[in-house]
Amino acid sequence: SPSRLRRKQTKWTLFGCSAAAQVKTSRETKGQFLSVNMAFSVGVMSAMYLTKGITGAHLNPAVTLSFCVLGQVPWGRLVPYSLSQLLGAYLASGLVYLVYYDAIMEFSGGVLTVYGPNETASIFATYPSEYMTLSRSFLDQVVGTGMLMLCILCLNEERNTPAPTKLIPPIVATIVLGISMSMSANCGAAINPARDLGPRLFTLTAGWGTEVFTCYNYWFWVPLVAPLIGGVIGSFMYLIFIHWHLPDPDPPESLFIPSTINDKVHQPGITWDNRKELKATRL
Amino acid sequence: SPSRLRRKQTKWTLFGCSAAAQVKTSRETKGQFLSVNMAFSVGVMSAMYLTKGITGAHLNPAVTLSFCVLGQVPWGRLVPYSLSQLLGAYLASGLVYLVYYDAIMEFSGGVLTVYGPNETASIFATYPSEYMTLSRSFLDQVVGTGMLMLCILCLNEERNTPAPTKLIPPIVATIVLGISMSMSANCGAAINPARDLGPRLFTLTAGWGTEVFTCYNYWFWVPLVAPLIGGVIGSFMYLIFIHWHLPDPDPPESLFIPSTINDKVHQPGITWDNRKELKATRL
Amino acid sequence: SPSRLRRKQTKWTLFGCSAAAQVKTSRETKGQFLSVNMAFSVGVMSAMYLTKGITGAHLNPAVTLSFCVLGQVPWGRLVPYSLSQLLGAYLASGLVYLVYYDAIMEFSGGVLTVYGPNETASIFATYPSEYMTLSRSFLDQVVGTGMLMLCILCLNEERNTPAPTKLIPPIVATIVLGISMSMSANCGAAINPARDLGPRLFTLTAGWGTEVFTCYNYWFWVPLVAPLIGGVIGSFMYLIFIHWHLPDPDPPESLFIPSTINDKVHQPGITWDNRKELKATRL
Amino acid sequence: SPSRLRRKQTKWTLFGCSAAAQVKTSRETKGQFLSVNMAFSVGVMSAMYLTKGITGAHLNPAVTLSFCVLGQVPWGRLVPYSLSQLLGAYLASGLVYLVYYDAIMEFSGGVLTVYGPNETASIFATYPSEYMTLSRSFLDQVVGTGMLMLCILCLNEERNTPAPTKLIPPIVATIVLGISMSMSANCGAAINPARDLGPRLFTLTAGWGTEVFTCYNYWFWVPLVAPLIGGVIGSFMYLIFIHWHLPDPDPPESLFIPSTINDKVHQPGITWDNRKELKATRL
Repeated sequence: SPSRLRRKQTKWTLFGCSAAAQVKTSRETKGQFLSVNMAFSVGVMSAMYLTKGITGAHLNPAVTLSFCVLGQVPWGRLVPYSLSQLLGAYLASGLVYLVYYDAIMEFSGGVLTVYGPNETASIFATYPSEYMTLSRSFLDQVVGTGMLMLCILCLNEERNTPAPTKLIPPIVATIVLGISMSMSANCGAAINPARDLGPRLFTLTAGWGTEVFTCYNYWFWVPLVAPLIGGVIGSFMYLIFIHWHLPDPDPPESLFIPSTINDKVHQPGITWDNRKELKATRL
Repeated sequence: SPSRLRRKQTKWTLFGCSAAAQVKTSRETKGQFLSVNMAFSVGVMSAMYLTKGITGAHLNPAVTLSFCVLGQVPWGRLVPYSLSQLLGAYLASGLVYLVYYDAIMEFSGGVLTVYGPNETASIFATYPSEYMTLSRSFLDQVVGTGMLMLCILCLNEERNTPAPTKLIPPIVATIVLGISMSMSANCGAAINPARDLGPRLFTLTAGWGTEVFTCYNYWFWVPLVAPLIGGVIGSFMYLIFIHWHLPDPDPPESLFIPSTINDKVHQPGITWDNRKELKATRL
Repeated sequence: SPSRLRRKQTKWTLFGCSAAAQVKTSRETKGQFLSVNMAFSVGVMSAMYLTKGITGAHLNPAVTLSFCVLGQVPWGRLVPYSLSQLLGAYLASGLVYLVYYDAIMEFSGGVLTVYGPNETASIFATYPSEYMTLSRSFLDQVVGTGMLMLCILCLNEERNTPAPTKLIPPIVATIVLGISMSMSANCGAAINPARDLGPRLFTLTAGWGTEVFTCYNYWFWVPLVAPLIGGVIGSFMYLIFIHWHLPDPDPPESLFIPSTINDKVHQPGITWDNRKELKATRL
Repeated sequence: SPSRLRRKQTKWTLFGCSAAAQVKTSRETKGQFLSVNMAFSVGVMSAMYLTKGITGAHLNPAVTLSFCVLGQVPWGRLVPYSLSQLLGAYLASGLVYLVYYDAIMEFSGGVLTVYGPNETASIFATYPSEYMTLSRSFLDQVVGTGMLMLCILCLNEERNTPAPTKLIPPIVATIVLGISMSMSANCGAAINPARDLGPRLFTLTAGWGTEVFTCYNYWFWVPLVAPLIGGVIGSFMYLIFIHWHLPDPDPPESLFIPSTINDKVHQPGITWDNRKELKATRL
């Protein structure tokens, strides 16, 4: 249900933005760049355990769109899911702001800005590095989200080496950590329209002003659009380079035991509820 | 039994406070802020494996209270458990003091204080950052403990994607790491009354004097009271936003095998002992 | 199929070199040496889940060669696999260059060099530290790759304590992380001819010039040859010191249930597809 | 067999000392204190997978002695195991010296010393911080090794929440990481006589001279004796505070299926070989 989804997105953003606030406002004495990446990653893990999704499909509109394109999620859910994710990210930003209000005021001297050494806008939304061109930052988001989809899609491919179903959340979290560590220098590795737009809308309403949208020549649309394209490209690359090359699984015909037992015995991490989803994810 | 619980709390505090002592007294040459967070997290994992609790209920009076409110732990156990946890944290602090006595004396010049660049009180209990207002630090502890409960409660929800039972300790430890990395800048992320009051009482008796209680305008009550409230709020948010929206599990009626086998086969990480607890935790 | 292999290698190199670019071009403000090691490690994990290999045999020509020598991979596959890995690493370097083009130009001032404080060649291929002698750097690569083979080969040894089949990717990734953290100071811990030659060829074609091959007295051949020798030595050490000392497994003769069920029940992480490979890997 | 044990110890020491060499000789530009801790931890994990031990009993004479006292390992194995471990650590130190010879010479200016800013002896063996008194450093080693035993012994206690058998190596590695991060400031967290004496003997023979034994007033005996005492104390504390309080497991009398199946089904990570050991470890 939407309220559940909203909460999930809330938690991801909450962990990550809180860590960003901690590192930023303590001027890196209480954490470092790596801490922010790790906290976002833990947030992803918790958010995935908190709801039922196996592949993290519904934390990220780019991932949801990819699953719609792949036929695994009905198109009708795309907009409501995305709006829930956006609302969750907005609420999480508000909570981070409440908890870190004193620290942000102390750090910024009470002036909420997007530029300069005391800027605090980057605690919430992502902004490009000064040297970035527009097309390069667009490519950056496409590649990052494409990698995310490639890495996620293989995790429960039965004909490959699937990850244990109950441990997919920490494994996805590790993947997100890897992308954050390797692709956040250019423009912050949003790779998620909701994670970026929600906090940006919050800062618009909370005192940072319209500059959060107008800065860097209206750059804000890049982390909205590029991840959607990157996710779909990554999904097609998965189909073309991996999925269509996998062999069909052997039917377990040599077994005399009923297939219901057999299924469960050779996939011991699978419970009743998620078996249906697993089937759905066989593209 | 109480002695077991005491030891558990001892271990958590022992790892964490030792790491704090190591980083502090070596002036960050032998570790960094992240090391302290990671050591606390390892301590949680070990403490959970050391005793039988699945959800870590009895490491933290705030978590114990939440489970009492949820009806999963009898109210009569709240006070004895909490006292055991408190005693464990007190003893652990004493052991850290014994092991790091030379280092603390070297670092502090033999003057045990709560303020200033050579203060050593923050090795043991938590203290707020100077810029924090009282209400903000209270909110900080409520949010941190609420997040902890939300993240813990979903881990063995059978109708969701539960974590593997035998791997819940490292997963909870990862969650505690995430909270430490993202919410410890304001006032140290105690999120546990026993973890904070035990070491504080120890420093009172070991030479830091009454200042450990009177400093920052008698701030010490915040990490005692706020986590209790935050834990209960987090639990209710879990019920309202997640638990009541989960579907009932399908009865496995299509199977002809006896339900005892079936149960075990599709939940392979579950042993006899903890199955009972698992049932108890279905709210 | 080769295209799949290529993609796998691509992903490993992509994560690692991206992280190297991030840390280097941000002058360590957005990450640190440890981040690069961790990102390479995540890349290994994702690449292993992305394809079917259990032991990571086909990420690394040195590992593939070792498996050929051990009789587990047909000799005919050595050259096509290695060429695929090389091509994948080349393509990944190109993608990293595209994504980090602006950052690299900003960092280097537009001059792509192998030496000096603004050198950027080490983002892609590995180079020795200045104090290294040739024979020492050769030994370094032999030891590193030997350790890798020793650590990998034991992971699915049934008669030992094997790792869970579905969790071998993160465990191998952790091993690669350990080798990176402990053996990359001398000459960058390539321990993989494809991971090193692919990016080096890319930098040759992308503007760094022939210096990437001629520098340090034509050092480039060391990470090509030494890992191949190290991998084979490590494999023989595994056979001599571990494998030949392991007891034969007990036949499960006390069981009356058919061996097919029995097999699956006591090896619950094994699916139909990888069982065959498991058998093949019993040396 | 002894040769296998030797190799295991070799690997632990090899990873850890290599990382120490990397961090030390690069003057912390290629790693940091945390990297050394993490590399030692990865070494423990690999070494455990490499041999059959479930609880890591035979990596560490202090742990072996504790298991002898607990009646789980025959006394006759104590001396041969310990000598194998010692020889392994000696050989590993030699290999680290070979690989890092150029770096050590560059760092130290060719003068191998135990004191001063260019000392290199601490790459191999452990030395106390200057402020430490003898009794304090003895206590430090007792507490560290006691914690290690407490944490290890609970991991396969069937009546508690045991860790998954096949994942005990990474979990023990995490525990070692926690102890390293929190208790290495005083005197380096040897907590293992073989890991300390082997490298110390190597440095004696390789050019550091007798100072490695005579320095700090013949301190070298502390990491030999204190861990043995600490391990035994930790084991008895485990028996007294945890083991004797655990309830007897329920007999699975409600099941009609034969106990052989039942056993395996509800303990799915257990293979034939290690089941026997598991039984042996029920104290």
